[in-house]
Amino acid sequence: MKPIKVGLLGIGTVGAGTFNVLQRNQEDIRRRAGRGIEITMVAARNLERAARIIGANGGACQIVDDPFLVVDSPDVDIVVELIGGYELPRELVLKAIANGKHVVTANKALLALHGNEIFAAAQEKGVMVAFEAAVAGGVPIIKALREGLTANRIESVAGIINGTTNFILSEMRDKGLDFAEVLKTAQELGYAELDPTFDIEGVDAAHKLTIMSAIAFGIPVQFDKAHVEGISALQADDIRYAEQLGYRIKLLGITRRANVDGVEGIELRVHPTLIPAQRLIANVEGAMNAVLVEADAVGSTLYYGKGAGSEPTASAVIADLVDVTRLATVDPYCRVPHLAFQPNQMTDVAILPMADIVTSYYLRVYVNDQLGVMADLTRILADAGISIDAVLQKGTHGDARTDIIMITHQTREKNVNAAIERIEALSSVVGKVIRIRLETLS
Amino acid sequence: MKPIKVGLLGIGTVGAGTFNVLQRNQEDIRRRAGRGIEITMVAARNLERAARIIGANGGACQIVDDPFLVVDSPDVDIVVELIGGYELPRELVLKAIANGKHVVTANKALLALHGNEIFAAAQEKGVMVAFEAAVAGGVPIIKALREGLTANRIESVAGIINGTTNFILSEMRDKGLDFAEVLKTAQELGYAELDPTFDIEGVDAAHKLTIMSAIAFGIPVQFDKAHVEGISALQADDIRYAEQLGYRIKLLGITRRANVDGVEGIELRVHPTLIPAQRLIANVEGAMNAVLVEADAVGSTLYYGKGAGSEPTASAVIADLVDVTRLATVDPYCRVPHLAFQPNQMTDVAILPMADIVTSYYLRVYVNDQLGVMADLTRILADAGISIDAVLQKGTHGDARTDIIMITHQTREKNVNAAIERIEALSSVVGKVIRIRLETLS
Repeated sequence: MKPIKVGLLGIGTVGAGTFNVLQRNQEDIRRRAGRGIEITMVAARNLERAARIIGANGGACQIVDDPFLVVDSPDVDIVVELIGGYELPRELVLKAIANGKHVVTANKALLALHGNEIFAAAQEKGVMVAFEAAVAGGVPIIKALREGLTANRIESVAGIINGTTNFILSEMRDKGLDFAEVLKTAQELGYAELDPTFDIEGVDAAHKLTIMSAIAFGIPVQFDKAHVEGISALQADDIRYAEQLGYRIKLLGITRRANVDGVEGIELRVHPTLIPAQRLIANVEGAMNAVLVEADAVGSTLYYGKGAGSEPTASAVIADLVDVTRLATVDPYCRVPHLAFQPNQMTDVAILPMADIVTSYYLRVYVNDQLGVMADLTRILADAGISIDAVLQKGTHGDARTDIIMITHQTREKNVNAAIERIEALSSVVGKVIRIRLETLS
Repeated sequence: MKPIKVGLLGIGTVGAGTFNVLQRNQEDIRRRAGRGIEITMVAARNLERAARIIGANGGACQIVDDPFLVVDSPDVDIVVELIGGYELPRELVLKAIANGKHVVTANKALLALHGNEIFAAAQEKGVMVAFEAAVAGGVPIIKALREGLTANRIESVAGIINGTTNFILSEMRDKGLDFAEVLKTAQELGYAELDPTFDIEGVDAAHKLTIMSAIAFGIPVQFDKAHVEGISALQADDIRYAEQLGYRIKLLGITRRANVDGVEGIELRVHPTLIPAQRLIANVEGAMNAVLVEADAVGSTLYYGKGAGSEPTASAVIADLVDVTRLATVDPYCRVPHLAFQPNQMTDVAILPMADIVTSYYLRVYVNDQLGVMADLTRILADAGISIDAVLQKGTHGDARTDIIMITHQTREKNVNAAIERIEALSSVVGKVIRIRLETLS
């Protein structure tokens, strides 16, 4: 059988990795796939640089600067989109689909925003759009959710799915440093981009979470409904206090079935989260990723590995290429549906507003250490129906002020917000209450 | 499309779980698979008990006591083998294949011993034999190895793949108890069978490891070449000493590419193993399973979850049923090969004898605390070319005898064996040297 022909859009970090790994392991990959996988065409902005990368790996293929030449080429069976961004990739992917080509992409932003349109077009045309590389790099979490857990009613997915922020949080905890300082180091080491906004503000994690939410629950991708909160406001003090109470703080993406007054809803949220320190996922350090899935039959399963980088991401791109190569010509009905559920079997369960989610909370209140302040705080929480799991009161800061930290049991977020408003109105309370959500993940 | 028809051989723990989960989640499973999956026939030794289990779940199907009626029935498309043991399942599975039926099995013993014969027959006949449930219960590790990591040259697989022994080791460490005592508790709690030999002597783990080794490296299943060593001889003292040195002891199944004097070989071994306590896999406690895979492109990935039990195992059985349902009628060439590599692309890299493996060692020597004994020990190791990473000398046991614990750097096992022989010949050494292998898994 002749090799399947692949066109690469973009040959940056992941594109070069894909080229390298395909060349290096071509023998093993062919032994598995039963057919060669050959990059026949590459679109790159910098033709010279592309030629250097390709040449250095002993490859030979057509290099063009217009990506539309690739998606229109009769010499390409599968288009691999590795450009990044939203609009140009959307256009290119839709054109490739219209041309009857299969697509492999690592672009989470594209799928989180335009996934519904793209998957509908692919379904219509009977081609595959594969995206293992879009979530958690080389960790085969999309395959696990879409194929490995098909027996289950999935209850929740919670993941450390952004390596940059996990690296920063690990360093802040290890070294007791502040966010800004660690970010600088991370940028110097290449763990954070020069403009790190998408990573540190939780947007990248929310893109990935949106995709996992859709395939876990059989709902459309709905990035616009996600709650997105990053780590840039996190203080070293809170990491230390959390540690003293037996918790680690991680930037978690959480999506979960919930029930508000008898109506089903889905939580979809990214934010810093306290996790009990003894949980496996609390011990995922540095730039590593991990995804914890709760499902009714299998219970808890966890998937761990490198969530970014040239070859880890290429590993997922190529796994998709092998899958697509195998199923390129079968009846589309025999393939795994793009979003795990048959397209006519999606549901429209609503994403819940944050006020309606139920979780536990870490509250830090900075107070004038005067008589009765603890009584005021606990009465306000009791009035709001919130029970307290743990309290930590630190010594004064030398100016008769002190931090009081409280961990609550589970409650609805609107109750906590109302209580915080009352707490902040107390004359003994200085400034804003710091509120961080807490998940026991038990 | 009409539901696909499934015949169940055996309705014990896993069979009942499969029935329950298929009934409970039938709606979600159909939404994913695009087609119903229906158990039409069950073979059971105890017809009344089977009828009770099936009835309790609102099911209705034919119950027979002769399993050959199921594999011969025209009313069955897929045979699910959940009987256990070797010979009868072998006969049944081969008959099912000969009848052109697809097979799903949770039987690791069967595949570790007769896998080559069974997969060859299935290949010949163009049917699938799926076995996700045979390794690590509901954790989709077979799918990860066969499909998720196809881009990679896999270097090693190391797993905690027997829940019974991991539960026992966790309890021994937590409570400082001896093996025999904990085994009794485990049996009372149902974590260990009345005849626990297969679990505690490492046979079950070796079955599973043999299967993973084949799909990781593209070699035939070769259970007879596996080194199998259980935990029944493990002493609480060694768990404690390991802890003091920063290690945990786990029963690991390890399979790894190796090189002996320029010739490629594969390590295939199950034995108690020291692991640095900070590794994620060292913190897998109780009856949980975890598999760590090292591969050239993706790096380390880890897969964690329940390795046994009714519904976790059923989760894997049903995931296989969905896969088989999707691909039941496609050209066999479009399916994932049984052992990950195309049948004509398997290699015959030899399994290494234990004398040739390279790893680190924990050595405990019980000595008369006399002048010069440490000098003797270190000289013997130095003579054998073995360098020492750490030493722990405990106070005397009250009779002028003491334990000396040494952790070595990596060396070939035959060197260590030769050194141990010389150490045991020293007049100052009492009894046998305790030797436990150590993997840094870095």
